[in-house]
Amino acid sequence: MGENAPAGTAQDDLMRLRATIDNVDAALVHLLAERFKATQAVGRLKASAGMPPADPAREERQIARLRSLAQEAGLDPQFAEKFLAFIIAEVIRHHEAISAAHGSPGESGSAGS
Amino acid sequence: MGENAPAGTAQDDLMRLRATIDNVDAALVHLLAERFKATQAVGRLKASAGMPPADPAREERQIARLRSLAQEAGLDPQFAEKFLAFIIAEVIRHHEAISAAHGSPGESGSAGS
Repeated sequence: MGENAPAGTAQDDLMRLRATIDNVDAALVHLLAERFKATQAVGRLKASAGMPPADPAREERQIARLRSLAQEAGLDPQFAEKFLAFIIAEVIRHHEAISAAHGSPGESGSAGS
Repeated sequence: MGENAPAGTAQDDLMRLRATIDNVDAALVHLLAERFKATQAVGRLKASAGMPPADPAREERQIARLRSLAQEAGLDPQFAEKFLAFIIAEVIRHHEAISAAHGSPGESGSAGS
């Protein structure tokens, strides 16, 4: 086809790329749902076992690992770190909600769990 | 086991849950890398085909779809929407960087692409 690609090709390419993006987004949503199930289980486990909610050493290991995985995958490591912080903020929101429901003094933490 | 679970069980459970979280995080990082590859291809395609970078109707469809997928998956739909906004902010940052590199007037948009 060269320089005279038929009309509609760019539109077709756009539709194909958007279909990929939509598939990836569906996978991301389902993985995030699983991740929050796991962090909620961690929250319950820590509460029932009397473990401290926050674990800064665990969080540091998670950041280092995600940055390294990002580098291998061709993703900006700084974005990977921002992404983890974004997820952790939501995990803390969940844990605070659990604490509030149990009448305990809303301790946050347990970070990326 | 009942109430007298052996010592170490809570710690073992925690390790198992964290291994799941780490696996999910690795998958998320790799999917995000693929998603940004696709949105960068969209950015290049739109620039070369002279398509407008932003497409508000597409973005609205993405939000509605992700909220619905989140609901099915047991994920807070409001979080899914926040998540898409977080990703889109990064996509716009990429597109602005591409525009800047090409000397065009840094138009943002193309949203979730």
